[in-house]
Amino acid sequence: MCDTCGCQTTKHSHQDRKLLEINKSLLEANDSVARKNRKHFGEIGARAINLISSPGAGKTTLLEKTAELLSGEFDFAVIEGDIETERDAQRIRAKGIPAVQITTGGACHLDASLVHKGLHELQHTVPESGLDLVFIENVGNLVCPAAFDLGEHKRVVMVSVPEGSDKPAKYPRAFMGSDLLIISKMDLLPYFDFSLEEASREARRLNPDIKIMALSSVTGQGMEQWRDYLAGLTKI
Amino acid sequence: MCDTCGCQTTKHSHQDRKLLEINKSLLEANDSVARKNRKHFGEIGARAINLISSPGAGKTTLLEKTAELLSGEFDFAVIEGDIETERDAQRIRAKGIPAVQITTGGACHLDASLVHKGLHELQHTVPESGLDLVFIENVGNLVCPAAFDLGEHKRVVMVSVPEGSDKPAKYPRAFMGSDLLIISKMDLLPYFDFSLEEASREARRLNPDIKIMALSSVTGQGMEQWRDYLAGLTKI
Repeated sequence: MCDTCGCQTTKHSHQDRKLLEINKSLLEANDSVARKNRKHFGEIGARAINLISSPGAGKTTLLEKTAELLSGEFDFAVIEGDIETERDAQRIRAKGIPAVQITTGGACHLDASLVHKGLHELQHTVPESGLDLVFIENVGNLVCPAAFDLGEHKRVVMVSVPEGSDKPAKYPRAFMGSDLLIISKMDLLPYFDFSLEEASREARRLNPDIKIMALSSVTGQGMEQWRDYLAGLTKI
Repeated sequence: MCDTCGCQTTKHSHQDRKLLEINKSLLEANDSVARKNRKHFGEIGARAINLISSPGAGKTTLLEKTAELLSGEFDFAVIEGDIETERDAQRIRAKGIPAVQITTGGACHLDASLVHKGLHELQHTVPESGLDLVFIENVGNLVCPAAFDLGEHKRVVMVSVPEGSDKPAKYPRAFMGSDLLIISKMDLLPYFDFSLEEASREARRLNPDIKIMALSSVTGQGMEQWRDYLAGLTKI
């Protein structure tokens, strides 16, 4: 009962408890499939990277540029997650990179089962020599994807300059669980009130071990550092 | 059982069914509180606007500019939704506008109960003459907020130029349920491969009745149109 107006508030404590129990059990099931995915990625010789950001931060563009950057050096493939449309996979395939599209049918994040399905689709197109890297491009969302292990080896969170440097403080979980923060669209720095120092400080406050890289797919800033990071992963 | 590798897939059909039932019942409970919110907004003479976008599309900045635009003409207040931090409410209060901050404690969207709580907090600061408008700034997320009626009279979805004109097609539900699409950060059009025509066409394909407005908080583009839209609402 609401003190001020007498409205019935919707506590539903019994339902809430049931929901929490089911969610816990679904997350445990997810983590179990994620562990299997990690093993599968290992079997094809690949390290997997789960790429998380808001819509439009530049995930697909970064992967297009990565195709040019790693061309002939490493074999990689992409599992594309979207709510709807095949567009991102088409953009990646246009660069000569194997890509499978997973649509979540409304869900706001990928889960390990969807990635498992994507992995098996991908295996039809993998070269005999195997793969060095598999990128998993998550649904554009800085909140929900942070809760789901997909079986990746590294989690990378991207924030673009136009989004603002307050994003780590406002969406902490995505930063707490990531290995690398990419600040993208650095070429736009002159047009925005974005503080690289604030974004880095807040991200490190949440996660002292997080690596930070400032990139621009337009000017090429930081792309060598990104290449070296990826090369380092393939050697682990 | 997965045909290719023998992995156990996580179907959990019994759990899925239970989860669907609980979700349906929670959404129904939400809608019932939303109807009460709408009544409450009416009682203080206000029309409520639910503002939805990705993180960093410029929701708070638009509200800051709206404070300058409507100063002395209309009384309005803001219910700020965030996962963490009081920052947005502080920015709004600095413009002399009453604002309450609702933090969702991890949840990826506002729901009607949270807004109901915000509404009652707000009532302590409302002038005796009542309010003309209440803006509800949702959590930065283009997916989950689309499913929850908060008791608003109008739903406004924002997409900023840096995010790209493919966003309506990729995140359809937010556009299907909105009355107005604001394309924000129009001053950045020269620096991006953004097609206003594509974004508008895709939004209208999903929702033939959606109004579309192109704004820039920096140059002031479209702000008179936005003012007229808000003035029109207060007269309904």
